[in-house]
Amino acid sequence: MNLRYGIVGTGAIGGFYGAKLARAGKDVHFLLHSDFEFVREHGLDIRSVNGDFVLPKVNAYSSTADMPKCDVVFVCLKTTNNEKLREMLPPLLHENTWVVMIQNGIGVEARMREMFPQLRLASGTAFICSGKTSPGRIDHQDLGLLQIAPFEIEADEIITQVLADCAESGITARQIDYRNARWRKCVWNIPFNGLTVVMNTSTEALMQSPAMVSLVRDICREVVSAANKCGCSVPEKAIEDTIELTRNMVAYSPSMKLDFDFRRPMEIQYLYTNAIAEAEAHGASMPLTRMLEEQLRFVEAQYLKP
Amino acid sequence: MNLRYGIVGTGAIGGFYGAKLARAGKDVHFLLHSDFEFVREHGLDIRSVNGDFVLPKVNAYSSTADMPKCDVVFVCLKTTNNEKLREMLPPLLHENTWVVMIQNGIGVEARMREMFPQLRLASGTAFICSGKTSPGRIDHQDLGLLQIAPFEIEADEIITQVLADCAESGITARQIDYRNARWRKCVWNIPFNGLTVVMNTSTEALMQSPAMVSLVRDICREVVSAANKCGCSVPEKAIEDTIELTRNMVAYSPSMKLDFDFRRPMEIQYLYTNAIAEAEAHGASMPLTRMLEEQLRFVEAQYLKP
Repeated sequence: MNLRYGIVGTGAIGGFYGAKLARAGKDVHFLLHSDFEFVREHGLDIRSVNGDFVLPKVNAYSSTADMPKCDVVFVCLKTTNNEKLREMLPPLLHENTWVVMIQNGIGVEARMREMFPQLRLASGTAFICSGKTSPGRIDHQDLGLLQIAPFEIEADEIITQVLADCAESGITARQIDYRNARWRKCVWNIPFNGLTVVMNTSTEALMQSPAMVSLVRDICREVVSAANKCGCSVPEKAIEDTIELTRNMVAYSPSMKLDFDFRRPMEIQYLYTNAIAEAEAHGASMPLTRMLEEQLRFVEAQYLKP
Repeated sequence: MNLRYGIVGTGAIGGFYGAKLARAGKDVHFLLHSDFEFVREHGLDIRSVNGDFVLPKVNAYSSTADMPKCDVVFVCLKTTNNEKLREMLPPLLHENTWVVMIQNGIGVEARMREMFPQLRLASGTAFICSGKTSPGRIDHQDLGLLQIAPFEIEADEIITQVLADCAESGITARQIDYRNARWRKCVWNIPFNGLTVVMNTSTEALMQSPAMVSLVRDICREVVSAANKCGCSVPEKAIEDTIELTRNMVAYSPSMKLDFDFRRPMEIQYLYTNAIAEAEAHGASMPLTRMLEEQLRFVEAQYLKP
């Protein structure tokens, strides 16, 4: 079965996974924004710890209205743009299109379900260190696992094919239960995205500070506890695993830190506000996460203020 | 009764209260450090919301070894220097000298008691916005109440005289119970000192942010709860009073923010670490205060690192 892929948001994540699929000969169509002209001319340049490659010619578009209908859409926008999907997504959809939300945070699919009641939705959680460093260029620094979790629907042969296509393209991908998808990734995202912004530093500097390692541990513990109350099954071991993983990672600026550095809106709503709200709805309180959220709100208001 | 006063640390606090006493004709002796030469030549220049004044000639010293014995010593150093008192203080002490620790934080007097088992100690808590802005010059921007609380000893006629001298000098001073002294001031100090540093801003900017007001309120609530468990009697009302007070204050950089701005050591130990430890010893946990402490430790290590 030959699937047609649409990549909505060709940045650090969409650009990387889409380019890997395209290199393997899959039918991939890329939506671009700021670097559309550049990529149409020059293609994509992937610098990866697993091997560099260039795709001199890709199917590049500046609007979904120009794109063909797809069997699988990877939504790789920042969640700060998700409300725009109401207008952007319909041109890509046929009756059986799967939309995989490769984003961070809590409540992504629930909000999509409100906008598109009939859509086949899955969450995608990417455990990857990558960044778009200049037009058309993606730097993949570490890791790469992609976890796909169908949302309120059973996986079908399309999902099986997506996993096979990923394997063929050199992407480590696997299907998991939705309940274990988003919260598991929050164990990393909530401490490290927020703290690199509020402390204006990298993951490496955090890991070198005993005070910050202690705080990261406390925040991880709070997230794991909330996750388990929310129906996700995260072992206690995830706390020390998260710290060890980060200690051994490259010095990394998470996506929220890059948003801060470039004075873009930060994904506070999905990554913090929604997580706290879902936790509270399940009887879990997240005081440290809330403090981090409030600090992020202040930081963002300082540079986004009119 | 004519008391002789020693001011150990002629900065924003000691400089202000000492100058007020000296202006009223009291016998005041000032220990100076960086601006000793300047003050010996030019005296003290007080710019105060309650009226400016200059003392062209004051009793200025660069070492306590040169100072006379005093009846009352106001210790107005940063707590980061308190270990030096073991050497600095003895030349000023006669058998009945009172030492009033006009400092912020928890555990100040207990530590002094370890160093000086026989000393007559009192805490001094200053509710004042002031700063030393250049050599010999103190800017008093707002408030001014000085609360004196004898520590593990009854007040005597000396304390009565101090209060009378203050009244005569235009200083609003009163005696309070020790249990209600230090923790009460922490309700302001813990949120505002730490947050102005970590968010790198002023009290005014914090009060203009709904996220920060919410966080300040949560931290105040945590401090009030800890204070009451530690035997201090702080009403719930103190939370909103603290917020209102700060909303109506001048835009202010608390002392810890000035320490940060000038890359000096911050009073993290007495203001945060000791407070958390005392709270825990009384069965109260302070997760938000601990998070702030850990953030401050990181910030300080960034600029004090060798």
